[in-house]
Amino acid sequence: MKIAFIGLGNMGAPMARNLIRAGHQLHLFDLNQQVLAELAELGSRISESPKHAAQGADLVITMLPAAAHVRAVYLNDDGVLAGISAGVPAVDCSTIDPQTIRDVAAAAAKQGVVVGDAPVSGGTGGAQAGTLTFMVGASLEHFTVLKPILAQMGRNIVHCGDVGTGQIAKICNNMLLGISMIGVAEAMALGNSLGIDTGVLATIINSSTGRCWSSEMYNPWPGVVETAPASRGYTGGFGAELMLKDLGLATEAAKAAHQPVLMGALAQQLYQAMSLRGDGGKDFSAVVEAYIKKEN
Amino acid sequence: MKIAFIGLGNMGAPMARNLIRAGHQLHLFDLNQQVLAELAELGSRISESPKHAAQGADLVITMLPAAAHVRAVYLNDDGVLAGISAGVPAVDCSTIDPQTIRDVAAAAAKQGVVVGDAPVSGGTGGAQAGTLTFMVGASLEHFTVLKPILAQMGRNIVHCGDVGTGQIAKICNNMLLGISMIGVAEAMALGNSLGIDTGVLATIINSSTGRCWSSEMYNPWPGVVETAPASRGYTGGFGAELMLKDLGLATEAAKAAHQPVLMGALAQQLYQAMSLRGDGGKDFSAVVEAYIKKEN
Amino acid sequence: MKIAFIGLGNMGAPMARNLIRAGHQLHLFDLNQQVLAELAELGSRISESPKHAAQGADLVITMLPAAAHVRAVYLNDDGVLAGISAGVPAVDCSTIDPQTIRDVAAAAAKQGVVVGDAPVSGGTGGAQAGTLTFMVGASLEHFTVLKPILAQMGRNIVHCGDVGTGQIAKICNNMLLGISMIGVAEAMALGNSLGIDTGVLATIINSSTGRCWSSEMYNPWPGVVETAPASRGYTGGFGAELMLKDLGLATEAAKAAHQPVLMGALAQQLYQAMSLRGDGGKDFSAVVEAYIKKEN
Amino acid sequence: MKIAFIGLGNMGAPMARNLIRAGHQLHLFDLNQQVLAELAELGSRISESPKHAAQGADLVITMLPAAAHVRAVYLNDDGVLAGISAGVPAVDCSTIDPQTIRDVAAAAAKQGVVVGDAPVSGGTGGAQAGTLTFMVGASLEHFTVLKPILAQMGRNIVHCGDVGTGQIAKICNNMLLGISMIGVAEAMALGNSLGIDTGVLATIINSSTGRCWSSEMYNPWPGVVETAPASRGYTGGFGAELMLKDLGLATEAAKAAHQPVLMGALAQQLYQAMSLRGDGGKDFSAVVEAYIKKEN
Repeated sequence: MKIAFIGLGNMGAPMARNLIRAGHQLHLFDLNQQVLAELAELGSRISESPKHAAQGADLVITMLPAAAHVRAVYLNDDGVLAGISAGVPAVDCSTIDPQTIRDVAAAAAKQGVVVGDAPVSGGTGGAQAGTLTFMVGASLEHFTVLKPILAQMGRNIVHCGDVGTGQIAKICNNMLLGISMIGVAEAMALGNSLGIDTGVLATIINSSTGRCWSSEMYNPWPGVVETAPASRGYTGGFGAELMLKDLGLATEAAKAAHQPVLMGALAQQLYQAMSLRGDGGKDFSAVVEAYIKKEN
Repeated sequence: MKIAFIGLGNMGAPMARNLIRAGHQLHLFDLNQQVLAELAELGSRISESPKHAAQGADLVITMLPAAAHVRAVYLNDDGVLAGISAGVPAVDCSTIDPQTIRDVAAAAAKQGVVVGDAPVSGGTGGAQAGTLTFMVGASLEHFTVLKPILAQMGRNIVHCGDVGTGQIAKICNNMLLGISMIGVAEAMALGNSLGIDTGVLATIINSSTGRCWSSEMYNPWPGVVETAPASRGYTGGFGAELMLKDLGLATEAAKAAHQPVLMGALAQQLYQAMSLRGDGGKDFSAVVEAYIKKEN
Repeated sequence: MKIAFIGLGNMGAPMARNLIRAGHQLHLFDLNQQVLAELAELGSRISESPKHAAQGADLVITMLPAAAHVRAVYLNDDGVLAGISAGVPAVDCSTIDPQTIRDVAAAAAKQGVVVGDAPVSGGTGGAQAGTLTFMVGASLEHFTVLKPILAQMGRNIVHCGDVGTGQIAKICNNMLLGISMIGVAEAMALGNSLGIDTGVLATIINSSTGRCWSSEMYNPWPGVVETAPASRGYTGGFGAELMLKDLGLATEAAKAAHQPVLMGALAQQLYQAMSLRGDGGKDFSAVVEAYIKKEN
Repeated sequence: MKIAFIGLGNMGAPMARNLIRAGHQLHLFDLNQQVLAELAELGSRISESPKHAAQGADLVITMLPAAAHVRAVYLNDDGVLAGISAGVPAVDCSTIDPQTIRDVAAAAAKQGVVVGDAPVSGGTGGAQAGTLTFMVGASLEHFTVLKPILAQMGRNIVHCGDVGTGQIAKICNNMLLGISMIGVAEAMALGNSLGIDTGVLATIINSSTGRCWSSEMYNPWPGVVETAPASRGYTGGFGAELMLKDLGLATEAAKAAHQPVLMGALAQQLYQAMSLRGDGGKDFSAVVEAYIKKEN
């Protein structure tokens, strides 16, 4: 297939490589000329604009940093909708608010183009290994078209409902993750200061009603889970700034929907405080450090 | 064995019945004469005081509502320590703060008596069925003595460390549970108001990083988990007032330890608000109702 | 003077009337034809676009609902900057985020136009009576030019610093107001439930370290301050939805600045919960109702 | 008058001195022999127990660290109620929970003794200078008796209602104070990070709806209020540990009354976090330091 791939950053570039490896011909667009040159060596075509990339493509995939980029890439005069043919499917893999992608899809629908959303989880490691999870918001028909292509970049391709629901699933899950992690951090730190062994406490929690992914797989207390970032200095995981981005999307969407999220908002502020302390680059589980008395 | 059993409320009475069934002879004490009479029919001895119950017993078990009762039952002039023989083991199954049981254990140690703590989870259903979980704070030697007896009242007998750690494990786990439940409530309500199907959202969360016991086994959204209280009008589970008791113990212990628990404190206040609204008798997962727009 | 006045809503229309009364000739622009017609009867000119309004004006004033409108009104092809002459001062009285007005001012500066910000407090009552407070972000020179004109619409004209600081002052003050009000609500409700007379409690607070504008002038407990909305069913004051707008601006600005605002975010969520309950149209002091047990 | 004065710590000792200076004869009791010896040199009698102190006294005043001490000093076998004559008035100036003093008063009433509560504000400086504020919970008749004596130790003697209301007034006011201070801290820090001059911001807030004692008299930003602890390294004011004590009393009382205090609880946790960081000895306004980026 001829696939337009727009947005070749830390996530987009390895995703595009996996499509090239799968035998597709890509129309690439990005502002970063170096990454374009590298991918062009693998046989892809470099495009001058999103419009140009979309022209003649059988499918359009976008992977961009924020909502403003998505609007621009699709709706500007030289955007995707100016070049795409009626009936060609498109999917945006960015993590943005649900309303933006719904607006873009509504604009596209007027010219017979169907746009879905498919934000991912799994990080740059998953993008390179082709093991991402895609949370797909699309009609069932559109999902059926997208699934085999997405499966060449990921392992779990989950249908969440109509366009926008991929974003909703992601921000709801990640808001809960952000809350759970702080909950585990508080429980572990409280147990530690009261005098229980933290390994024993984690074992008890993990076989009881407090168990959650954050306690079992990603425990923030150093040494409890060998493979977790906490056991290697809070490096190499899901950075606090990325968690902040997702919590920002969640509280913004909640605001627009007049939906209170007290715990979600408190979680956002606690990661924000972590960022102020200069620890935004650490794995988000380092939020536990605010609960541990520093030795002098 | 001759077992002194003090405290025969909703939890203590069925626990005592299970010990009688297992063939032990019980020395019973409680202020409620009716329950005493009922249990005496099964062949147990009624005692006039905790001291009297402890006299001649091979083991002392207490199951009381709050720390003040535990202090009084052990330390008063007619209390357990006035009647118990040196070398006889004792265990308190109440859910109280860790410091109280440590104080009682220290007082008991002066006369050669070892006291441990073994708070339970599993509710009145588990007490009747003999399937409780006991979180035991005791020396390894003491734990070895207690374990076979506790196993006649429960299924999981977990050693948490020295005396007090049973309470610590319980309040840390339940604080995390209280937080997670509200996190799930906010995530489900946000997803619902943004337009994703709540069953689909729960499925995605449960296979992703947001998964936790509260989302998988006890989801607060009606209809998502058939066996959960949410699917039967929030009845018959773990009442919000009981969660409030445990969160109160957690934040009190945190205060004494100079340990911040921001999410734990916010959770306590949100269940408190639920109590103010008159819903303290509902299952604690009904906290989700504060996040759902009422139809008029 | 010839003054372009763009944005004639609930606030802008009475402000424009006061300028007309003061003898100025206005170039009016709004999408609402009815209000244009009414004001035209007073001798003002109706313009076809912001650009048209700015042409030939000695001063440009804008009063718009949100940041997107401000960007459009100044920067669009038919916007203010397309019509304004170099050297003509402009001031935006909308309540928006500080960054947007700084961006607009930077764009204007390229063509020799100075734009300041002057958000107001005082509500529609103050707009009609000409008693608004203007918080002005502008160079001292620009402030000196604006002050006499603003003084024809308001009573207190406060210089906050360079462009953007008017918005900053407003959102910081209003975030504190939103927090204080809930603090007063909790203190009054706690005192009431513990058994002190609420009038006595308010008097004590107001002569002690807890005193604040929300307790003295605007106490949320019914009957404590005769002139406060609480004493007339929470009508006719500063609506909760307006408070939500300002708290949204505050937490958004905080997010962009990597600045935690835990209390500010919690306040936002509590007014959001009030909005979910259907009370967003009440005065913001009605937040106290969440703390009062309903009689059945 | 012969006055029994029990509890001669940092507050009690200077209060007792002021009564001695006013010409009263004191019956002193404390566990600290050194302070007893110092005060005895001024002509007071040393007593062997609270009972002994109360014997023959015309008035009993107590000033103790916590509720447990108040219960013991009044109710123990050698306590005040064992020595006091019927008709002799008593007043407890400790800061404790309202229920304890109500319990003590109920016990005293059985033997014809009236006990009131009169917690103070003003700190050790006010105790020495005789400028304390007393918040008095007592019947009007009892208040009339106490007022002239309290006036020899303080400047403002405020009648709050029946016994217990003094404590209620104090904890409600101080909870609001603790919240307001953090609100001011967040507003000042947000303004600073967004780029407004903090002195200008404080001036605007203090003439607007955000104004409160914490912003006007005790602004936490260094240099804004010359006489505030923030301008002398957060020394010599109201320590964070004292604020924590009062917030602990407030949230405990709220728990007992089934009254949610979300902001109060969050404030408690934020001062608790300050304590964990090792800053509990600083003035409570140093809570602002958590909001300021540290330079490296």
